[in-house]
Amino acid sequence: MIKTIGVIGGGQLARMMITPAQELGLTLKVLAENEGSSASLAATAVGDYTDYETVKRFAETVDVITFDHEHVPLPVLEKLEAEGFKVQPSSSALRFAQNKLAMRQKLSELGLPVPDWAEITSANELQNFLDKHDGVAVLKTPTGGYDGKGVMIVRSVEDASDWLVKGKPLLAEEKVDFVRELAQLSARNTSGQWSSWQVVQTVQKDGVCSEVLSPAPNADGTSAAIIAKRIAEGLGVTGVLAVELFETKDGTLLINELAMRPHNSGHFSIEGSVTSQFEQHLRAVADLPLGDTRSVSNFAVMLNLLGVDDSNTFVEHYSAALKVPGAHVHTYGKSAREGRKMGHITALSNTSIEEARQLALQAKEALHA
Amino acid sequence: MIKTIGVIGGGQLARMMITPAQELGLTLKVLAENEGSSASLAATAVGDYTDYETVKRFAETVDVITFDHEHVPLPVLEKLEAEGFKVQPSSSALRFAQNKLAMRQKLSELGLPVPDWAEITSANELQNFLDKHDGVAVLKTPTGGYDGKGVMIVRSVEDASDWLVKGKPLLAEEKVDFVRELAQLSARNTSGQWSSWQVVQTVQKDGVCSEVLSPAPNADGTSAAIIAKRIAEGLGVTGVLAVELFETKDGTLLINELAMRPHNSGHFSIEGSVTSQFEQHLRAVADLPLGDTRSVSNFAVMLNLLGVDDSNTFVEHYSAALKVPGAHVHTYGKSAREGRKMGHITALSNTSIEEARQLALQAKEALHA
Repeated sequence: MIKTIGVIGGGQLARMMITPAQELGLTLKVLAENEGSSASLAATAVGDYTDYETVKRFAETVDVITFDHEHVPLPVLEKLEAEGFKVQPSSSALRFAQNKLAMRQKLSELGLPVPDWAEITSANELQNFLDKHDGVAVLKTPTGGYDGKGVMIVRSVEDASDWLVKGKPLLAEEKVDFVRELAQLSARNTSGQWSSWQVVQTVQKDGVCSEVLSPAPNADGTSAAIIAKRIAEGLGVTGVLAVELFETKDGTLLINELAMRPHNSGHFSIEGSVTSQFEQHLRAVADLPLGDTRSVSNFAVMLNLLGVDDSNTFVEHYSAALKVPGAHVHTYGKSAREGRKMGHITALSNTSIEEARQLALQAKEALHA
Repeated sequence: MIKTIGVIGGGQLARMMITPAQELGLTLKVLAENEGSSASLAATAVGDYTDYETVKRFAETVDVITFDHEHVPLPVLEKLEAEGFKVQPSSSALRFAQNKLAMRQKLSELGLPVPDWAEITSANELQNFLDKHDGVAVLKTPTGGYDGKGVMIVRSVEDASDWLVKGKPLLAEEKVDFVRELAQLSARNTSGQWSSWQVVQTVQKDGVCSEVLSPAPNADGTSAAIIAKRIAEGLGVTGVLAVELFETKDGTLLINELAMRPHNSGHFSIEGSVTSQFEQHLRAVADLPLGDTRSVSNFAVMLNLLGVDDSNTFVEHYSAALKVPGAHVHTYGKSAREGRKMGHITALSNTSIEEARQLALQAKEALHA
C-alpha cells in the first residue's frame, strides 16, 4: 500500500497537492529546486532533479515518485524504474509529454486528430512544409518549451535560421485556424480506472493561460472526453492528463499539447468539483479509487494572477480582494516577477458563466488596484 | 501586517488550518504537544503549553497566537499579553470559554438565554438547587471538561460526594428538557467585523458529537445568529465562536457551551461553504476581511469517524470509502484509540438533507465494513 508520495519539483502544483495528501492520510514529500519554494511546507529535500543520485536518494524516502513538472531527464527516470522504484506516470508515458515529436508520432499512429506536422532537420524540409501550408508554420523545439517558450511562427526558412543551425530535429506544425482553445482534464489510476471532468475553455494571453471557463460554453464535451481517454490508455498515462485542444470553425477538435500532471486549466476544480485535480492525481498515482468529478455548481471561472513587476502588489491589496464575496484567492508564496504565475482566483455561479467571471474579475481588479 | 500565525496545540483543528493558511499566503506555525501530532506538517515547536517560557519562545517566532484548544492556562496568556504579544482570542475573552462559571455569570449579565444555574460550594447549596429543580441537576466542573468529561447528572447530594469533597466551586445547571441540540458558528475579526454561517443541528452520542446537519431543519436561525453576535461582541471574542444551543419543545434556544476556535460542528464548512471555518478563523485573527459564509449547496451532512479500538480499520477499508461518489473523507493522521476522533466525512446535496446523509453514511459504512 502506498503511504508516501514523492513529488519532484516544488512549484505551485506540488504546493496544491499538500492539502489533498493530508486529507487522504498520505504523506507528501517534495524534492524542491531551492529553499523557499512554493511547496516548501512539504519539501523534505532540496537538490538538482537532473542528477540521478539526488533523485535516487529522494526516491528512497517515498513509495512512489510523481511530478510537479515534466523536466526530469528521461534517463534518470528509466534508471530509477530499472532499480525498482515506482514512477507515475512512468517514463514510457512521460516521454510523450517531454518530446513533442514523439507525441505527434504516437498520436498519429493512434489515429487521433492532430494538426498536420513534420519532423524538420533541414532548411529544405522546412521549405517543403511551408510550401504545403500557405507559407506559414508553427515551429517548435521538441523538448523544453512551455508557456509560449520554444515556439515560433515562421513564414520563411530565414525566420528559423537560428534554430536550424543547431542541427537538432524540430517539429513543424500547420498553423491551425482555431476559434478557441479547450482543455480536457482527466485522470487514470494505476489499475486503469479513468475519469474526466467537463471540458473547459482556456483563454491565452501572450502564450500564457489567463482564464479558464468551466464548462466550455457549447463545446463538444463527448468528443473531447473520447480523445482524452484514448490518449490516456494509448500512452499508458497514470495521474492527471491535460489535453489542450484547438477548436476550429466547424467544431473540429485537434490536439495541441499534453501534460501528464495537474494543469493550470484544472485549478477551477479545487472549488468547482467534488474532487479536485490535485486530489485525483494523488489518488491515481497511489492507486486509490478515483473520486467523483462532478461539478458542485453550474459554472466556474478561474483567472490567473501574473506578476506585474518585481513588487508584490498582491500583499498590499490583498485585503480588498478578500472582501469580494464568493471569490477564492489562491497565492503560491512566490517572489514577484513580471509575467510569473503568482496565484489564481476562482469564482462559482449557478446562474451564468458571466456572473462567475465578474466575481473573479472584481477580486482580480481589487488586487491590481 | 500579520504574516505568521502561531497555533498552540497540534490537533486536527490546527491541521485543518494548514490549507487555508497556505491559500491565504500566511505562514502557519504550530506548537504541538508531541512529535507526530495531527498538525505535524506545520509544527515548528514541540513542548508543554502550560509552561510560560515554552510558549513565549514560540510566540517570538510568530505575529499572533491563536489556539487549537482552550487549555492554555490563563496566567500564561495574560503574561504574554503584558509583554506585548498578540493573542487572539484574548485572555479576557478566552476566560469565558475556559471557565463555565465565569461564562454563565457573564451571559446572565448580558441577559442572554441560559439554563437556570448556580455556583455550588457545599452540599447545602446543591440540595437547595436540587429542591428547586425537581430533584435533578447537571453538575459541571467549571474548568477542564470536554466531550462529556467533567459533567455529571445528579439526583442527590450523595451522587456528587466525590466532587464536593474537593472544596472547589462547581456549576449546577437545570437539566434542560431539550428536543435537539443546535450549534451557531460565527466569527469576528479584530476590527469587529462579524459573520455567521447557517445554524446547524448536532447529534451527540455518549457525549461526543457524531453528526452535524447543515442547515438545522426548521430551526430559528435568526434567533441563533442574534445570540451568537451578542456573545461575540459582549465577550470580545475574536476568531471563530461556536455557540452550542439547546432547543426546547416550544422552540426556545438556551445557550449550552461556548468554544472560541474552529469547532467540530463547523467541519461541514470545508466543502459546504464558500469560506470554511478554518479559513475564517485565520482571516479573523490576522485581521483580514471575513470571507463569504454562504453555502455552496442546499444541504450538507458531516459524520465523525471515531476510533473503534486500537486497530486502524480506516486504512484497511479506505479504498472502499473513497469509491463513494460525493463523499469527502477526511483523516487526521492520528493513531487509533476507542472513541477518538480519527476523521470525518462530509457529503453535500442540493436535493435533501437525507440524500447528503445517505452518501456520508455509505462512505462511513464502507470504512467500518
